Amino acid sequence: MTKEIAYQEYSSTVLETISKGAFLTTNAGGRSNTMTIGWGSIGVMWGLPVFTVLVRKSRYTYELIENSSAFTVSIPLHDMQAALALCGSKSGRDMDKFAAAGLKLQPGQKVSVPVIGGCGLHYECEILYKSAMDPAQLDPAIQKNAYKDGDYHTFYHGKIVACYLDD
Amino acid sequence: MTKEIAYQEYSSTVLETISKGAFLTTNAGGRSNTMTIGWGSIGVMWGLPVFTVLVRKSRYTYELIENSSAFTVSIPLHDMQAALALCGSKSGRDMDKFAAAGLKLQPGQKVSVPVIGGCGLHYECEILYKSAMDPAQLDPAIQKNAYKDGDYHTFYHGKIVACYLDD
Repeated sequence: MTKEIAYQEYSSTVLETISKGAFLTTNAGGRSNTMTIGWGSIGVMWGLPVFTVLVRKSRYTYELIENSSAFTVSIPLHDMQAALALCGSKSGRDMDKFAAAGLKLQPGQKVSVPVIGGCGLHYECEILYKSAMDPAQLDPAIQKNAYKDGDYHTFYHGKIVACYLDD
Repeated sequence: MTKEIAYQEYSSTVLETISKGAFLTTNAGGRSNTMTIGWGSIGVMWGLPVFTVLVRKSRYTYELIENSSAFTVSIPLHDMQAALALCGSKSGRDMDKFAAAGLKLQPGQKVSVPVIGGCGLHYECEILYKSAMDPAQLDPAIQKNAYKDGDYHTFYHGKIVACYLDD
């Protein structure tokens, strides 16, 4: 059972929770993968509700999302630390992370990308705009803390086309 | 009197309200200006609370923010439609919009940019990263609806260094 909610209704919960970990799920070419994210934002852009995620170029998720028009974000409303730790440390290039972490996929309601069942809160998003980071425009302290290895993020701004709670 | 709040506490209110208009205030070279915005996002990036705003290159605010390291966003928690309409239709190049709209500036608590007194809710932000839009990465429908004239936005991601309510 899922319950549709307004995209902004749980934004405060999302911001509190995402720092501790959430699941960014993508698929392309018949393969799905999820990764743990700790960053993201919710807003209004182009008059539309938008979820923004950031993905480093080294990630397997980057390969998938670059060949997709959608992504989903699943926010754990209860303790899923073991699964988050696995999905934040292993690459989907090397294993089926869903099986390894005991995660159950549910089909997306509005997009072809699945969500992580049982998380509690899901955002399905269609990519409207993406932007690879330009190091020249970045605060030097952030540069030093987050990008010593030159592995920059790409921003993906996705229109929220479905937002709902599950059991 | 102001009351400090957690940056995410009023995020749902911000998202509901910003579509109807909020004030983006900037200053540089001894001049301040405010403009009405209808878009923006709140999130966590680089492990920090971040408010993202978008400014078109044609705007006077663009001249100022490009020469500044900070901005503020003031969210009207009550009816300020007349002031929002003026600040969304007139340019600070031609007039003192604060005087014309009857807006009272309050000094920023943590940044050198003022906030709009009496709005009810304020975010003071230090710019961490900015990114001029790349039309090649934009959804064609958005391109057509928002940028027929080629007047693209620049994204400004600001660390939220103060967030508070006023009377």
